[in-house]
Amino acid sequence: MPSLKVCLSPNLINLFELKGNTVVVVDILRATSCITTALGCGIKSIKPVSNLEECLALSNEGYITAGERNGKKVDGFDLGNSPFGFMDEKLQGKKIAFTTTNGTQAINLSERADLVIAGSFLNIAAIKDFLYNQASHVTIVCAGWKGMINLEDTLFAGALADELSNDFNVDEDATLASIYLFRKAQNNLFKFLQNSSHFNRLSKLNIVDDIKYCLKFNEFEVVPVLKNSELVLLES
Amino acid sequence: MPSLKVCLSPNLINLFELKGNTVVVVDILRATSCITTALGCGIKSIKPVSNLEECLALSNEGYITAGERNGKKVDGFDLGNSPFGFMDEKLQGKKIAFTTTNGTQAINLSERADLVIAGSFLNIAAIKDFLYNQASHVTIVCAGWKGMINLEDTLFAGALADELSNDFNVDEDATLASIYLFRKAQNNLFKFLQNSSHFNRLSKLNIVDDIKYCLKFNEFEVVPVLKNSELVLLES
Repeated sequence: MPSLKVCLSPNLINLFELKGNTVVVVDILRATSCITTALGCGIKSIKPVSNLEECLALSNEGYITAGERNGKKVDGFDLGNSPFGFMDEKLQGKKIAFTTTNGTQAINLSERADLVIAGSFLNIAAIKDFLYNQASHVTIVCAGWKGMINLEDTLFAGALADELSNDFNVDEDATLASIYLFRKAQNNLFKFLQNSSHFNRLSKLNIVDDIKYCLKFNEFEVVPVLKNSELVLLES
Repeated sequence: MPSLKVCLSPNLINLFELKGNTVVVVDILRATSCITTALGCGIKSIKPVSNLEECLALSNEGYITAGERNGKKVDGFDLGNSPFGFMDEKLQGKKIAFTTTNGTQAINLSERADLVIAGSFLNIAAIKDFLYNQASHVTIVCAGWKGMINLEDTLFAGALADELSNDFNVDEDATLASIYLFRKAQNNLFKFLQNSSHFNRLSKLNIVDDIKYCLKFNEFEVVPVLKNSELVLLES
């Protein structure tokens, strides 16, 4: 039986053997929720970029730029990190260059895996079905907050691990902890997260609507996969 | 109000500001449970040593040597890592040099804190009372297993944070996660841990009695503090 492991912080990623693994990167608030929304709404591709300058430079190559630092849109960028910004019909078919505090770094750190996909509550059933139908080991990489563990990414990891626990070995302690936490929280994720540090950081920025949206299940049936350093729809 | 934070792996320790903090190092299975037992049973001091050779060399300076790697006693050492070994009356008043896979490294990594103490379920009430009566911030450093997060150390962190949550800020996500996990597990820690990775690693070595002992609450009223690189009883 293949294994499913949870890496609760990008700062722990070197402890994980990513060769032979499909990595699911998760940054619920808000990078991978944005990526899911973007591909679900017809955007062609999203290029994750670790630094602001490199991201901005890509506007000369026809990319729409999207950027956030510490929860706020960066001056000079076309879009911030609100998932609602990626729903604009005018963006359909466009390529986006995207840099965020945590999520895009986690994606780039995962590139040595066999395959990298982006997960969120918005597409968790599609991710689950995809993982169920492939033979590879799975590592869920939580983006966290500047290396610190956060609850919302841990809860996603627990939700996905719980769904797959009959078909994968889920015996590592961080995986078990994630599953227990999700089961505790599942009846009301929003309420559970109200004490969490990132929730409070974001709610000060008046983006409670973003948070509520990012905690919805299965708005899109898309599996964003990293191909030639860009996230695109899985070809079926 | 001072803060209480939980560092779930020594590999995350650089994210924490330890200056101005009292660090509680925890390695339930079994280093800090051994340290608590040793000081509770009249051993004079325990010197945590990161490598085997350095530990063994201290036998020439009058130290009793205790060493474990991957859960097993090391050849040539006087003692292994079973807490029962530290109860021997002949050891009273002796100095011990101690090296383990995870616990002693976590102690040595914490030395930049204002004060380092060793915690376990065996002395959790004494630790709680000590922290309650001092004004410093607190960081609980879980030893984990070779950098990976483990459940038993996380549960101790959650138990201690839960006890102190009225008197410290406990709003970081890893701290909240630890508290939720402890509350889920508290009625039967042994049963809760039966699925955990380290439990299974150790139970293959036939040390279930050690595990049961390390999950007992308040066998000793001791606070082991690091002083001149040795753990000794707090002077009252």
